[in-house]
Amino acid sequence: MAVHTFYCPSWIDVGKGVLNTLPDIVKPYGKNVFVVMDAFFANHPLKDRITGLLPGCEVKFYTKVTPNPRTNDIDEGAGICRDFGAEVIVAIGGGSAIDTAKAINIVATNGGGAWDYARRAGETPREIVKPLLPLIAVPTTSGTGSEATRYSVITDHITHAKSTIKTDLNFPVRSLVDPELTVSMPRKTTALTGIDAFAHCFESYIGTKANPFSEMFSLQGIKLFIHSIERACENGNDMEAREEMAMCSTLGGLSITHSATTLPHGIGQALSGVTDAPHGGSIAVCMPEVIRWTLPYGQKKFAEVARMFDPSLASKSEEEQAYALPDILDNLFTKIAGEKMTMAKYGMTEEKIPAVVDMAFHNYKGDLSRHPRVPTEEELTELIRKCL
Amino acid sequence: MAVHTFYCPSWIDVGKGVLNTLPDIVKPYGKNVFVVMDAFFANHPLKDRITGLLPGCEVKFYTKVTPNPRTNDIDEGAGICRDFGAEVIVAIGGGSAIDTAKAINIVATNGGGAWDYARRAGETPREIVKPLLPLIAVPTTSGTGSEATRYSVITDHITHAKSTIKTDLNFPVRSLVDPELTVSMPRKTTALTGIDAFAHCFESYIGTKANPFSEMFSLQGIKLFIHSIERACENGNDMEAREEMAMCSTLGGLSITHSATTLPHGIGQALSGVTDAPHGGSIAVCMPEVIRWTLPYGQKKFAEVARMFDPSLASKSEEEQAYALPDILDNLFTKIAGEKMTMAKYGMTEEKIPAVVDMAFHNYKGDLSRHPRVPTEEELTELIRKCL
Repeated sequence: MAVHTFYCPSWIDVGKGVLNTLPDIVKPYGKNVFVVMDAFFANHPLKDRITGLLPGCEVKFYTKVTPNPRTNDIDEGAGICRDFGAEVIVAIGGGSAIDTAKAINIVATNGGGAWDYARRAGETPREIVKPLLPLIAVPTTSGTGSEATRYSVITDHITHAKSTIKTDLNFPVRSLVDPELTVSMPRKTTALTGIDAFAHCFESYIGTKANPFSEMFSLQGIKLFIHSIERACENGNDMEAREEMAMCSTLGGLSITHSATTLPHGIGQALSGVTDAPHGGSIAVCMPEVIRWTLPYGQKKFAEVARMFDPSLASKSEEEQAYALPDILDNLFTKIAGEKMTMAKYGMTEEKIPAVVDMAFHNYKGDLSRHPRVPTEEELTELIRKCL
Repeated sequence: MAVHTFYCPSWIDVGKGVLNTLPDIVKPYGKNVFVVMDAFFANHPLKDRITGLLPGCEVKFYTKVTPNPRTNDIDEGAGICRDFGAEVIVAIGGGSAIDTAKAINIVATNGGGAWDYARRAGETPREIVKPLLPLIAVPTTSGTGSEATRYSVITDHITHAKSTIKTDLNFPVRSLVDPELTVSMPRKTTALTGIDAFAHCFESYIGTKANPFSEMFSLQGIKLFIHSIERACENGNDMEAREEMAMCSTLGGLSITHSATTLPHGIGQALSGVTDAPHGGSIAVCMPEVIRWTLPYGQKKFAEVARMFDPSLASKSEEEQAYALPDILDNLFTKIAGEKMTMAKYGMTEEKIPAVVDMAFHNYKGDLSRHPRVPTEEELTELIRKCL
């Protein structure tokens, strides 16, 4: 019998206005506060709001954060963080800002460079021996779930290879998940980040590492996604929908913390590495086809998710339910994004397939191996061709 | 909008044989291991097994553990723990052993007596200022969920008043939930502890503090209870059933950690205070009647749970579904316990009703106030009379 583990030590508060508790939360840790924010916020009122919330503190902002956090930016930020004498780190933004802050925390306290700590084929990541600073995560999108994970995804600035720093020390000590911060997200970003959150829940659910703990996070997240993603896209000010999507995103993080992503993330991330496809979009363009390809190998969980989207399917056979899911998702993704997304639109071509397959097998083998149907290189090539 | 909090820092491993990982788990904390065990284990092979698992360690056993942990036993154990120079505490047994160990940990490290730290009307519990020892919880029943909570329920040995030490420091650093340890539980104990686990899930679910986090723990726990309690009672060696009940119990702990118990626990605990009713039995004898009394004030969640027990109810109205629940539970409790449980059998009489009502209102007001229908003293009197 397998051992099922429950573990996420982060204290996570989800609710409108929780950012206002930041002063109380920072206080016990010290007065030197290093704030890592998305570049997007460099001249944003949110920056002044943060300063205003921390009147007795020295606040140092670092906003060199890119969508795929680069090791040189992280290492530079770590130096500034160390020189500043930071006592606590606050990460505000999407997954990139939180992942950057996690990596800065490790480098600032343990030295070396961020890439030393990442998982790379054939190499043992450098050990973290000194205690990290407390990290407070404040997501401003509802997608990544990084506020509830031990992961920090980073990109080597020289080779552009992507990898992950995976350590229990990466869990934020506190996470403030305030749906008010997501209200200004444009519709398209809401849709793509929402698809990412759904993918975390869904892929963890169908994956071979799924267990009673991960499954409950997954199902609760999927339920909230179904209930709120359309409303959040249609009306960004719908606070109930924003709140449910914020919760969905956190549950997605808890899902991958207790299980893991599978083939759609494997293909999607490789696609983003080869083209400039945005993360959520790269998953949307392959997930329906991945499901169709997987269904001959098991239908139960797919049928269950299909019924959650469309309870009227209950009268159909399990097979019919399961086979309805790819179209349900395809139609929903198109509807919320406002357009049909395809690999071709992201610059993907027949010629680039080998590169995507190669990257998937090299960098995202875990995603492939945890999928309920594990593809060969030939099968993956054929599968990606169908998504073009 | 309310703030919903996710927080349980304990690392919890659930699975057959996880007790065998104890050596690796104890190792980083030190060699002086203080083991708190149920009195029942004083001359049990499990004691030798623990010693055998920790060959390089000094192991000191403390087995003065009673079903309602008494302050004098806790304070005595704390003295022994301190004198021994314990570096880590291992708690093995039912909820009483784990709750005793939690309280010993506080007193051994912070001084005073256990009762100083308990919540009492009109008094501020003594502050915990010094760090506690790491506590590893190993439950041997599937009921209390103490391996996943911040609670330690203790009884003042002089006044026999019961109270709770509630602190985030009470969360075990690790919990080893090994269903193999529950195999020897007699049928009746399996039934009564299982009812307690179900009650934690169910009461948290219907309570006014329920939220998307607690609800998912509750529903997953209820699902496992329905799937496995009868099999665990009928055949104690059914390892799948034992494992699912172990998981159910942990989920019950997570449920009350994120929401809380309600009226059945309020009445049940007061009943146990006035009579000698066992904890699980005290809840079983009032829960169906409590539900009947509550239904005019809301049916949705009760109907949902009823459908989980009996999917064929789906064709009925929500009202019919909800009103089916009390009988479903009554019949199931009788079936698994092997006899119809009643308050009268536990020595409860008409004359003792005022004492139970009084204790419920004084010691378990929180349970009452979080119930979806809050009783007056008159209503509670009438309700208990119906359970006689």
